[in-house]
Amino acid sequence: MGRWEPNAQGRLAEAAMELYSERGYEGTTVAEIAARAGLTERTFFRYYADKREVLFDGGGQMQELLAGAAAAAPEGAEPIDAAAVGLQAVATALDERRGRDFARRRQAVIAANPELQERELSKLASWSEALAGAVEERGVPAATARLVGEVALAVFRAAFESWVADGESRDLGELVRVALAELKMAVG
Amino acid sequence: MGRWEPNAQGRLAEAAMELYSERGYEGTTVAEIAARAGLTERTFFRYYADKREVLFDGGGQMQELLAGAAAAAPEGAEPIDAAAVGLQAVATALDERRGRDFARRRQAVIAANPELQERELSKLASWSEALAGAVEERGVPAATARLVGEVALAVFRAAFESWVADGESRDLGELVRVALAELKMAVG
Repeated sequence: MGRWEPNAQGRLAEAAMELYSERGYEGTTVAEIAARAGLTERTFFRYYADKREVLFDGGGQMQELLAGAAAAAPEGAEPIDAAAVGLQAVATALDERRGRDFARRRQAVIAANPELQERELSKLASWSEALAGAVEERGVPAATARLVGEVALAVFRAAFESWVADGESRDLGELVRVALAELKMAVG
Repeated sequence: MGRWEPNAQGRLAEAAMELYSERGYEGTTVAEIAARAGLTERTFFRYYADKREVLFDGGGQMQELLAGAAAAAPEGAEPIDAAAVGLQAVATALDERRGRDFARRRQAVIAANPELQERELSKLASWSEALAGAVEERGVPAATARLVGEVALAVFRAAFESWVADGESRDLGELVRVALAELKMAVG
């Protein structure tokens, strides 16, 4: 009854991702996830509100990290470069947290379900707003800060898509740098 | 019975927008929209699949216009400037179609409903992909074209938000030019 299970959350996340990949997100129940992880449903609900949250867990922390790192970028950095400091912080955290393989499978699950896609877009829009807020705090006009937030997220998404693509071996931080350089070329 | 009603679609759109603003999107029924427009439900369904479609009608045409205009941009234009030609085409069409007042009310309705917000984000993501496709056709590498598509949409959203803001009187095309100049400043 409620006894502590080692790494229960990680086991639940891994079990959920296996099942979503095998039988689809919609065809998977919380009971099945818990059983696959060798845990109870009750333990599942100690970590996640529902099966969707397994895919979006940690998004709030990432958003804080993104905005916090951009806010702490060196004084005098250009707005896009301050935003890039935030992106690098998130890139490092994602690389270290569940890693590329998890991200790859998560991406495939989301791509197969319109409701999850919309949720993902909504999450990224909220990251963009948080980043814009941090950039604005640095003294950048609000409209420009919003634009920088959105453009930075576009860079991040481009890097992320490369990161989870088949055969890609560079880490996410490096791919963020590559995408940022491409942006500067395409816009400059 | 099925007789032709002058400007039925425009009347339905206007009636829907009035009701969504007065009593909220969720609290409005198709029957009420039809009644307010002085038309039948049957006429409503001749133009729209459901009450949500009133807010997203024309999105497909806009997407084609966006991609088509970018594809037809002068040879040798920079990728972002080809994308900007697409944005200008859409800006002109939106300014002329239902105009700023309609867009303003639509924006408020969407902002009040998470499902509509997610639908709007999804529409813009699909515009971005279409634009990226057109840019890639011009000989730009796929990854860069995707990034240009997203950045261009960020410019468009920034311009659009200004356009529907209280007290703004510049037209959407001009605001797209302003946002593009801001982008070049912030990134360059």
